[in-house]
Amino acid sequence: MKTAIIQLKVKPDKFANIARAEELMTKAVKNDAKLIVLPEMFNCPYGTQYFKEYSEPIPTGPTCQRLSSFAKKNRVTVVGGSIPEVSNGKLYNTSAVFNPSGNLIAKHRKVHLFDVSLKKVKMKESSVLTPGESLTTFSTPFGKVGLIICYDVRFPEIFRQMLKKDIRAVVVPAAFSVVTGSAHWKMLMRTRAVDNQIYMVAASPARSYGKGYRAYGHSLVSDPFGVVIAEAGVGEEVIYADLNNDRVEEVRNTLPLLRHRKFQC
Amino acid sequence: MKTAIIQLKVKPDKFANIARAEELMTKAVKNDAKLIVLPEMFNCPYGTQYFKEYSEPIPTGPTCQRLSSFAKKNRVTVVGGSIPEVSNGKLYNTSAVFNPSGNLIAKHRKVHLFDVSLKKVKMKESSVLTPGESLTTFSTPFGKVGLIICYDVRFPEIFRQMLKKDIRAVVVPAAFSVVTGSAHWKMLMRTRAVDNQIYMVAASPARSYGKGYRAYGHSLVSDPFGVVIAEAGVGEEVIYADLNNDRVEEVRNTLPLLRHRKFQC
Repeated sequence: MKTAIIQLKVKPDKFANIARAEELMTKAVKNDAKLIVLPEMFNCPYGTQYFKEYSEPIPTGPTCQRLSSFAKKNRVTVVGGSIPEVSNGKLYNTSAVFNPSGNLIAKHRKVHLFDVSLKKVKMKESSVLTPGESLTTFSTPFGKVGLIICYDVRFPEIFRQMLKKDIRAVVVPAAFSVVTGSAHWKMLMRTRAVDNQIYMVAASPARSYGKGYRAYGHSLVSDPFGVVIAEAGVGEEVIYADLNNDRVEEVRNTLPLLRHRKFQC
Repeated sequence: MKTAIIQLKVKPDKFANIARAEELMTKAVKNDAKLIVLPEMFNCPYGTQYFKEYSEPIPTGPTCQRLSSFAKKNRVTVVGGSIPEVSNGKLYNTSAVFNPSGNLIAKHRKVHLFDVSLKKVKMKESSVLTPGESLTTFSTPFGKVGLIICYDVRFPEIFRQMLKKDIRAVVVPAAFSVVTGSAHWKMLMRTRAVDNQIYMVAASPARSYGKGYRAYGHSLVSDPFGVVIAEAGVGEEVIYADLNNDRVEEVRNTLPLLRHRKFQC
């Protein structure tokens, strides 16, 4: 299954972000992508002060309606990165997935909110966001795919939970900072791929250089042995990779980690 | 707590291996190491055809008696890598730990046996070895330390189990192959450190170039943020690192992953 990651440069204008995402997704469709992945908060600058103003209901808000129409018109699956979702007066960091019929087939609310106080990165998502409570998978022609958002990737137990659903890949709309990204981004994505013998599809926004939050970039796809088969730089870019079930089976058969597990945690 | 890893060049002569380990451990003591770690199968070539011939009871066999005497004489804690252990007619891949009084304070039998059939690495430890059934921790002045052997490191759930004992570090006598080592060694050690906010102390034999199994080398210590604070090359070498509880606390407080966990697996 040919997969594209849209490493979008997110700007303050919500509808300009959506329009630019559509342009780049159209390019991906022309290149035969069947699964298209956008980054975390692709329609909104990443910062707690913006989430309320940019928030929409899912899937009835304008952002999701545009993604749904795109998926249907182009017969592709779209993982809509994430957007600030409003529901019953609460805000969530939520990813919506639309199938080639334009139907919402999965919705993941970020479970682990990013509350950290590193020297150069301070963030408290929980000051405005409510966490999700459950894990999310969806079906594709390639097989079951897990869906998490950014900081969720730091918790290895959730991959073990999703494996019970027979996932073959995990898609991660994310926006790691330059600090944590340079320290951990590629290593974490590759290790999750190796430990769980799955593809990891990790989408970041392009880096921006203003006063605000600076995303790391380097969107990537790792195969189930930890080989990075596609990787972006820091600018706006579309990258492509094939997800191949034969490769999943080969890795699971020659290095049978999943069969060798002896403990739960 | 100053820690030394002895990246020993393992040869066919068991008693020559022990004597060489003692020489290098003496050097480590002179450099003020308080915890000394040997690699997996440090007294025996790594291969299923050797384990029976080289096996000994623990701690009454000659290898453990020498390690115990060394620990007592030099007032250090010795993690005796691993050796082939014989017990009730069964063979195990076992690590024995001696405290500065020379007492055996922990014994870990490798839980996950290395049965793989990669193109360039085929091994079936289970053809001669019996797996251990439990996880192992021991106390040091630095705090609780987990003890696993080589392939055990590929199973993230065991770290979550050991965290329940309040571990601050995990020691890994290992012998990754050149193939899996160059693909995964450093990444896995660093990720376990980051995910569990612990020091990882990973000991490999030096690389050998004969017909047999070729160990990767690159013994290393990662701090709890994934920073490699000591790393060997491929030859025989002693490396040193300080394990520092202030660093553990700093990482756990500024990036509070352990408090943010929401799922079991």
